[in-house]
Amino acid sequence: MKCKTAVIGYGGMGSWHAQQLRTMQEMELCGIYDIAPEPSNRARKNGIYAYETFEQLLEDKEVSLVVVAIPNDLHKEVSIKAMEAGKNVICEKPVALNSQELQEMVAASKRCGKLFTVHQNRRWDEDFLVVKKLYDEGTLGKIFNIESRVHGSRGIPGDWRNTKEHGGGMVLDWGVHMLDQILMLTKKRIISTYAELTNITNEEVDDGFKILLKFEDGLSCQVEVGTSNFINLPRWYVQGENGTALIEDWDINGKLVKVSDWEKRDAVPVVTAAGLTKTMAPRTDDTIKEYKLPRIKSDVRDFYRNVVKSIEKEEEQLVKHDELMRVMKLMETVFQSAEVKQAIHEII
Amino acid sequence: MKCKTAVIGYGGMGSWHAQQLRTMQEMELCGIYDIAPEPSNRARKNGIYAYETFEQLLEDKEVSLVVVAIPNDLHKEVSIKAMEAGKNVICEKPVALNSQELQEMVAASKRCGKLFTVHQNRRWDEDFLVVKKLYDEGTLGKIFNIESRVHGSRGIPGDWRNTKEHGGGMVLDWGVHMLDQILMLTKKRIISTYAELTNITNEEVDDGFKILLKFEDGLSCQVEVGTSNFINLPRWYVQGENGTALIEDWDINGKLVKVSDWEKRDAVPVVTAAGLTKTMAPRTDDTIKEYKLPRIKSDVRDFYRNVVKSIEKEEEQLVKHDELMRVMKLMETVFQSAEVKQAIHEII
Repeated sequence: MKCKTAVIGYGGMGSWHAQQLRTMQEMELCGIYDIAPEPSNRARKNGIYAYETFEQLLEDKEVSLVVVAIPNDLHKEVSIKAMEAGKNVICEKPVALNSQELQEMVAASKRCGKLFTVHQNRRWDEDFLVVKKLYDEGTLGKIFNIESRVHGSRGIPGDWRNTKEHGGGMVLDWGVHMLDQILMLTKKRIISTYAELTNITNEEVDDGFKILLKFEDGLSCQVEVGTSNFINLPRWYVQGENGTALIEDWDINGKLVKVSDWEKRDAVPVVTAAGLTKTMAPRTDDTIKEYKLPRIKSDVRDFYRNVVKSIEKEEEQLVKHDELMRVMKLMETVFQSAEVKQAIHEII
Repeated sequence: MKCKTAVIGYGGMGSWHAQQLRTMQEMELCGIYDIAPEPSNRARKNGIYAYETFEQLLEDKEVSLVVVAIPNDLHKEVSIKAMEAGKNVICEKPVALNSQELQEMVAASKRCGKLFTVHQNRRWDEDFLVVKKLYDEGTLGKIFNIESRVHGSRGIPGDWRNTKEHGGGMVLDWGVHMLDQILMLTKKRIISTYAELTNITNEEVDDGFKILLKFEDGLSCQVEVGTSNFINLPRWYVQGENGTALIEDWDINGKLVKVSDWEKRDAVPVVTAAGLTKTMAPRTDDTIKEYKLPRIKSDVRDFYRNVVKSIEKEEEQLVKHDELMRVMKLMETVFQSAEVKQAIHEII
């Protein structure tokens, strides 16, 4: 039986959800609800039913699942109301503005006996999955540093995303994905969080950030977003004791270089404009080897498929409450670090 | 009249100094002194006079200037002895192991009335001079972020440079150059220093570091060295409000991208493996323009030329005591930050 689904909010992400759902055998799109008339009309033109009111949607007994794709400050109220009306809920990210809100949403899920999960869709990003493969398989030896960057040059969108009230800013918008990805790599605990936020084009909310994390096993991570970057640094830079991987972009251009003979440090001094260096001399070809990056195919609709099977108690929910809480606590620590301009040594 | 110069220490850098001096009309290489027989013999084979003892060199009234190119922990004692013997002194970097030592060296210079300076030769690096030009000329608009990285993959050299006793480690070896370069860009004060050191291939001293600086005018800098990096990130990444510059390497490969119409944010959503984004959509060609990096030619021997003219009171010394002290204090703050795992908010 198909999982009958409605989408709340028919903006950028809501439209995207509707489009995805219509391609899936497992799901049936019952309709959308948007508070504004324009998106509702647009949906109708696309052949999608548009509910007149939120209450009408909640009263539709056919609807088993709702996808909440509205401004961040409304996630909690709408998700809880939907669960109380007997709906299972997929909420857009960031799930809430703070861990207290998330706690209330999780409590509602338990109280109502309804599935509640979050669209952490970037767990299916193929660039991330390549990094995860390298991490899991130990291709580079023990990994001690991971740098994850997303750079754009458009500032931040001029809609609710640049207001504090509605939960705007890049930590909540992109940080939530990038930190979630890092936490998917390792179950080790974070022992130190240092963050700097930027306000280059926007005073009210952060338009970028630089976060340095230290894990209990020594792993360092730099997670970074910029929106005034007219040239992008690579999406991923991963260092293991025996090699380095670089992923340039979403299309997974890049390479992997592994050492074949660590001890062979036959330094060829490099003459620069102002001197020479042995330490920074490039390695000769006989001690390192370049490889292609592995390729991985993913289908982000596996997220919905898991939700459907979880509702039917056939699978465990992939995006779990404790994972969501951990990312939320980490983002709170990021804001705290930036506020007090200090590293926070709380265990996360 | 030529400036008669002797080099103390005939290792890698000492040999380099001797070689440079021999190409210069303004200088005359009187000889070298090395504590070990092998370098002395090598010098003689190269047609260079090798003093038998340090005292013999000091007693040679012909010698006006000595270049001190020996392990870092010996800089202070040898430099002061040379000044006390009436010699002007160029000391290799890092000038000393801490600011107390440097203070004693500066005091000796004043007491003896002799020139004392340090071979901060990377002020003449052409990649750095390109960054300085961009900074000074405001080509990118107000610059708010500068990232300076030097990556190698050979660990650190197996000589005295990997011992704490002799002042080894990458902060003292490369950090001293890279921090000096940053401080040459701006006279603004540093208000925050956060540093993490790495010990990937060496337990005793740092084999790399990541330093985040904040200046009073809002400028952020990331200064970073790695010696287990089998792929290098770019040497420089510079962000201004109206453009970004990237310098790949010592040969100044790279580019400069400037916005021509900031407000034109005609977002083309980017579809990735797992979704779409407006914020991170690439700019269209009509709003940005790519330029070649400016080129600058420099001659590191201008350092010696300035020393000669400074001895003759014809020019002001380029590498000044207060600049050396500022870099030394910054390095001490870096070590302190890494030790206490906190940002240090001392004004530097």
